[in-house]
Amino acid sequence: MAVGNIEFPKMQAVAGIKLGTACAGIKQTERDDLLLVEMTAGSTCAAVFTQNAFCAAPVHVAKKHLSTSPRYLLINSGNANAGTGEQGMQDAMASCTAVAELTSANTEQVLPFSTGVIGEPLDVSKIVKALPATQANLIEDNWAEAAHAIMTTDTFAKGYSKVITINGETITITGMSKGAGMIQPNMATMLGFIGTDAKISQALLQSCLAESVEQSFNRITVDGDTSTNDACVLMASGQSTVAEIIAGTKEAEIFQLAIQEACLALAEAIIRDGEGATKLIKIKVQQAVNEAEAVQVAKTIAHSPLVKTAFFASDPNWGRILAAVGRSGVAQLDVEQISIYLDEVCIVEKGGRASSYTEEAGQAVMNQQEINVTVVLGRGQVEQQVLTCDFSYDYVRINAEYRT
Amino acid sequence: MAVGNIEFPKMQAVAGIKLGTACAGIKQTERDDLLLVEMTAGSTCAAVFTQNAFCAAPVHVAKKHLSTSPRYLLINSGNANAGTGEQGMQDAMASCTAVAELTSANTEQVLPFSTGVIGEPLDVSKIVKALPATQANLIEDNWAEAAHAIMTTDTFAKGYSKVITINGETITITGMSKGAGMIQPNMATMLGFIGTDAKISQALLQSCLAESVEQSFNRITVDGDTSTNDACVLMASGQSTVAEIIAGTKEAEIFQLAIQEACLALAEAIIRDGEGATKLIKIKVQQAVNEAEAVQVAKTIAHSPLVKTAFFASDPNWGRILAAVGRSGVAQLDVEQISIYLDEVCIVEKGGRASSYTEEAGQAVMNQQEINVTVVLGRGQVEQQVLTCDFSYDYVRINAEYRT
Repeated sequence: MAVGNIEFPKMQAVAGIKLGTACAGIKQTERDDLLLVEMTAGSTCAAVFTQNAFCAAPVHVAKKHLSTSPRYLLINSGNANAGTGEQGMQDAMASCTAVAELTSANTEQVLPFSTGVIGEPLDVSKIVKALPATQANLIEDNWAEAAHAIMTTDTFAKGYSKVITINGETITITGMSKGAGMIQPNMATMLGFIGTDAKISQALLQSCLAESVEQSFNRITVDGDTSTNDACVLMASGQSTVAEIIAGTKEAEIFQLAIQEACLALAEAIIRDGEGATKLIKIKVQQAVNEAEAVQVAKTIAHSPLVKTAFFASDPNWGRILAAVGRSGVAQLDVEQISIYLDEVCIVEKGGRASSYTEEAGQAVMNQQEINVTVVLGRGQVEQQVLTCDFSYDYVRINAEYRT
Repeated sequence: MAVGNIEFPKMQAVAGIKLGTACAGIKQTERDDLLLVEMTAGSTCAAVFTQNAFCAAPVHVAKKHLSTSPRYLLINSGNANAGTGEQGMQDAMASCTAVAELTSANTEQVLPFSTGVIGEPLDVSKIVKALPATQANLIEDNWAEAAHAIMTTDTFAKGYSKVITINGETITITGMSKGAGMIQPNMATMLGFIGTDAKISQALLQSCLAESVEQSFNRITVDGDTSTNDACVLMASGQSTVAEIIAGTKEAEIFQLAIQEACLALAEAIIRDGEGATKLIKIKVQQAVNEAEAVQVAKTIAHSPLVKTAFFASDPNWGRILAAVGRSGVAQLDVEQISIYLDEVCIVEKGGRASSYTEEAGQAVMNQQEINVTVVLGRGQVEQQVLTCDFSYDYVRINAEYRT
């Protein structure tokens, strides 16, 4: 039950990055659930990971291996290898070793990623058995198949692809993400993998990614639950004819904004596929003193089950939005200064219902599939946006039946 | 769909406190929705209120009037008079004036309370019209009718009554609460009204109430949404034969614990009536460094939609509890030190699934209507408990249909 435009784009191949999928039968046996990604020698690779203290075994391993010129990513869906203790660490390492034994890479050059149910042991033998098949079909033009292989409760594959021009030469940016529930990424994301042929140092690539993720994946929430397995990876093969991108230049700014656009598109796709979602809600907080309080207000609204069920019902019960702003914990909030809008319709001003508000105008906005909520705090100059979805019967059904 | 024991107790009358109800027809016309409470001259009265910045007009007025030796409480259900701006303030004051005109009290001796939908103007004329009927039936033995009159989405009336003995003489404590949704009281509660015939100063009464509320109403959550109208009032008529209770004495401690017991019982009743609730979940966090981090971990679990839907499904998907602990934001959490239990069944130890855990044992606990979750942090000595309920289809239905 995805919201609005979810068309899968034509995925441009990225020179120097090959992808191969196979069915390892980890949870299901009807579709591919294992993905191997190969980066050409000399590629750089950046990544950000979940801040959940119970982060999964593959997150621990991938963090450690990131500094060793990674050549391969190995991603499985169907099992998160999280909450699996010491055995989980051994299993994640064994997966990396299996890739090393098939290729010219060292174990330390393989980054493992897992997504799926938490707390079940990962059956590495299934991965080892399916690995040769992934290697056998490693090709550059394989992003669509890859985007499908990493899905769990997702109802559609999420892709982004764009060719940008710098100084008359082109750089390709192609990426994919997955995720529908346990979504409130914190300094990271659900699984996201973006490839580019740009020539760029690891340090600059990492800062580009971190900045982009902060304004995209870290500004979405389905249910407020931060996963144990979130990770976002940006690979740069250096095969583009564009000269190396150097920090502090105009080219670096263009590239960073292009990466951010990719992250935003992939993050929005996750919300459009939010578990049980029927609506896409964009919550913009304006005139905040700083970014932290803007995000705090936006996320309080975005996490309110009362607000989310009202959106599901298309009920302009704006009192719930007002109550959420009021409990958001921002110190010395002067309600007299606050205005709240549904799209262009002012619902709250001077601490109460706007004099111009009519139930009909509110209802017209609430009937839409995509709704903008704007909260004007009247305290400062900062603006931030958070994306979320509504809360439906299907959210309960999907999560009540997840393991059955 | 209330959880477990919800028997309404025999409500002992409290000498010096009279209650009268009537139907004002504010939202519905089939049952009483207006309550007048009269305290005898010389009573003391303590109260705590919501910390929501958008607190309702009656909250503003009641806070102001609390210092003027209150003689009356006026409570309506069906409309919160919140988000109503300046008109709301005038309406709340007009209600107080209407009580003053019928009685010997001043307007400033009347505390108004409203609960119901946010953002609709309160029709004061309906209250003024019904007030004489509430006055006409003011009697001491009327707590049961009163508990029904303050209900909104509640499915049962919530009462508590106990007679305690101090130095051979008795003190009666009788109270009521209401609330089922928009429940995460913050320094206050949904509406709670407790009466006692104890002789006690206003200052000591206020500190007794504040301490009791902190450990009871402030430790429950249905949906994480803090209401604009929360209030808890403790009235003491001084009619008991027990000598005046003095701060710092053993008698004060007995009295405070008795009030806390009343608050706990009334708070638990709210969770048993949580919107759509099918289960009562008691989340205990042990060995925390301080109260704040214990409550933070407990509330992160209690607010997780993924945890709550797993409880609804009786699914021992304990990975969701582990993920919630991990994202709770406690600094330097060492997952190796953490154990998690479902009742007596250890599910997590040393960062992963407990070696003794079996799905059967977890399932047996999850099948219960009342479940204890214990998280042992291994960091300190502090223990805190938070009560919550599960998240069901009915939660979505109730809140999607609230205004229809």
